[in-house]
Amino acid sequence: MANTERNIRIPSEKMKSEFSRILFNQGFSEKKAEKCAEIFTLNSLEGVYSHGVNRFSRFIKNITEGYIKPDAIPTLVNRAGSLEQWTGNLGPGPLNATFATDRAMELAQENGIGLVALSNTNHWMRGGTYGWQAARKGFVFISWTNTCPNMPAWGATDARLGNNPFVIAVPYKNEAIVLDFAMTLFSYGKMETYMNEGKQLPYSGGFNKQGELTDNPEEILETWRPLPIGYWKGSGMSLLLDILATILSGGLSTHEISDCKSESNISQIFIAINIRSLKNFPAIGNSIQQIIDDLQNSNQENKSEKIRYPGENVVKIRNENLKMGIPVNREIWDKILSL
Amino acid sequence: MANTERNIRIPSEKMKSEFSRILFNQGFSEKKAEKCAEIFTLNSLEGVYSHGVNRFSRFIKNITEGYIKPDAIPTLVNRAGSLEQWTGNLGPGPLNATFATDRAMELAQENGIGLVALSNTNHWMRGGTYGWQAARKGFVFISWTNTCPNMPAWGATDARLGNNPFVIAVPYKNEAIVLDFAMTLFSYGKMETYMNEGKQLPYSGGFNKQGELTDNPEEILETWRPLPIGYWKGSGMSLLLDILATILSGGLSTHEISDCKSESNISQIFIAINIRSLKNFPAIGNSIQQIIDDLQNSNQENKSEKIRYPGENVVKIRNENLKMGIPVNREIWDKILSL
Repeated sequence: MANTERNIRIPSEKMKSEFSRILFNQGFSEKKAEKCAEIFTLNSLEGVYSHGVNRFSRFIKNITEGYIKPDAIPTLVNRAGSLEQWTGNLGPGPLNATFATDRAMELAQENGIGLVALSNTNHWMRGGTYGWQAARKGFVFISWTNTCPNMPAWGATDARLGNNPFVIAVPYKNEAIVLDFAMTLFSYGKMETYMNEGKQLPYSGGFNKQGELTDNPEEILETWRPLPIGYWKGSGMSLLLDILATILSGGLSTHEISDCKSESNISQIFIAINIRSLKNFPAIGNSIQQIIDDLQNSNQENKSEKIRYPGENVVKIRNENLKMGIPVNREIWDKILSL
Repeated sequence: MANTERNIRIPSEKMKSEFSRILFNQGFSEKKAEKCAEIFTLNSLEGVYSHGVNRFSRFIKNITEGYIKPDAIPTLVNRAGSLEQWTGNLGPGPLNATFATDRAMELAQENGIGLVALSNTNHWMRGGTYGWQAARKGFVFISWTNTCPNMPAWGATDARLGNNPFVIAVPYKNEAIVLDFAMTLFSYGKMETYMNEGKQLPYSGGFNKQGELTDNPEEILETWRPLPIGYWKGSGMSLLLDILATILSGGLSTHEISDCKSESNISQIFIAINIRSLKNFPAIGNSIQQIIDDLQNSNQENKSEKIRYPGENVVKIRNENLKMGIPVNREIWDKILSL
């Protein structure tokens, strides 16, 4: 968790109220400032600092540069039963994504399943956020976004595919099981952290200038050749996720989102499934518990490292940060206070 | 393509009529024998021999052992709008999966999107088959199956997760782009092929007895510790695909499908999306073409290896095998003729 660099801890309520104040000053309505501040705070509270507190200043910069329109809201483009196309009108990514998640759940409530395809939106920060939102309301949720080109196709040396984060979430007890992963083995943020700490990656994470696989994060940050998960497989999945996001939303494809600084005008998919409409609904909680129990009865390679389900650690970190405050680098926090 | 072992070529019509004859003798109706034979032949024609001609005898064995019921057809368990639950009643996997694909397309025709969750079915052979079926009819298609436990979770030494093949397909020209991949980097079939040819895997594909990553296929076949794509990521995706297949269908989970020989009673998900219902439908073909063009304009690492989209090679192999006949090992073919 790179605690070395985060030398202060901020109570989550304090963080949220600062975010809210700044967003309100940027032209957000009081309600929208509150909601958006809540998401940035929650992402931080749950340990995804890179897409929470550490990204907040950049989010504000993207607003002042005009990429993000504080007062824009999604509008309906087309409805075909349980499938809707919306444009995000370049509104704030986290609010647009929350809207689309809510709308997908409404459609699922009506028809068992709902799909919202969203064009012209902005970076949603952390995809898992919407998985947690939907799963804690009792829905199964599948979602993904395209991104700017930041990953070469398998066999290529120039980045033309996106790392296209992909989310699957299901309700679990009062919490959720949330899988949230990008198509690169290590994110750029993770590689920067390893580099700053002077560490090698635990596994080869990309190619160096010589076209050789390397676990040196600095070399990969130089070439912009991170490794897709499963080599050719992650490359193919990235391509298909982009095609689907593009054609279902009628929005831009990765190759059209050339500006990686703003990463604006992206396309996203939100699918919700209403498990309450299923015949076996009463048995579902027990069924998931049995699957998790079986997983956690695995023989562990390393006796001290429990086999975890996706999202398990989030609950632990959230509780810790609720109690202790959210760890943040003093300079980053001072910059936010000055906004 | 291991042509060394496949020393004869059988015309696809001949292969199909032999399959059809044998299935009819096993109690399939004429129509169902024809359809099932067509799928096994097409899988072979398109180069997926491991789930075509090379698996046909095992399919027949599973029928005679009573795992597959030739005359069973899926029955509806529950309908909630665009979301339906069916039981496969242990009918032939490829026919059940074709049925579920057709039904998902019907639901998509009505409501934009349709999801069919299928419990108590049998091995579908090649997931891509249903992707091609749906995409060539103009639908976007997402599908997956659970399997018996054949892959350890990340950090575990015993196989409790499935490799759970996952399919995404979209229409492309008169063909399709079809991504069809399992959660292990290399399939067991692929590792056996490398081993039989005395070759190492091109990348580490699993762990040896000492718990070290290895590219020696024989060592991985010994430990049953193949590597998930993206290590912890493929492990998480396998878990979530199994949870979704299980709870949406109300069927069995990987941990309940303990018999890897028959791999019976599995659970599958079929999602179809009717892109004709989209506002931007007229522009979709062009949009996909631009994405593929951009991909194929990548700088190639190896100038002689074209960057391919998923499924591109299938068309090439199909045309070759249509012309030359389907390559098959003489002993395998003789065994089929004797059935």
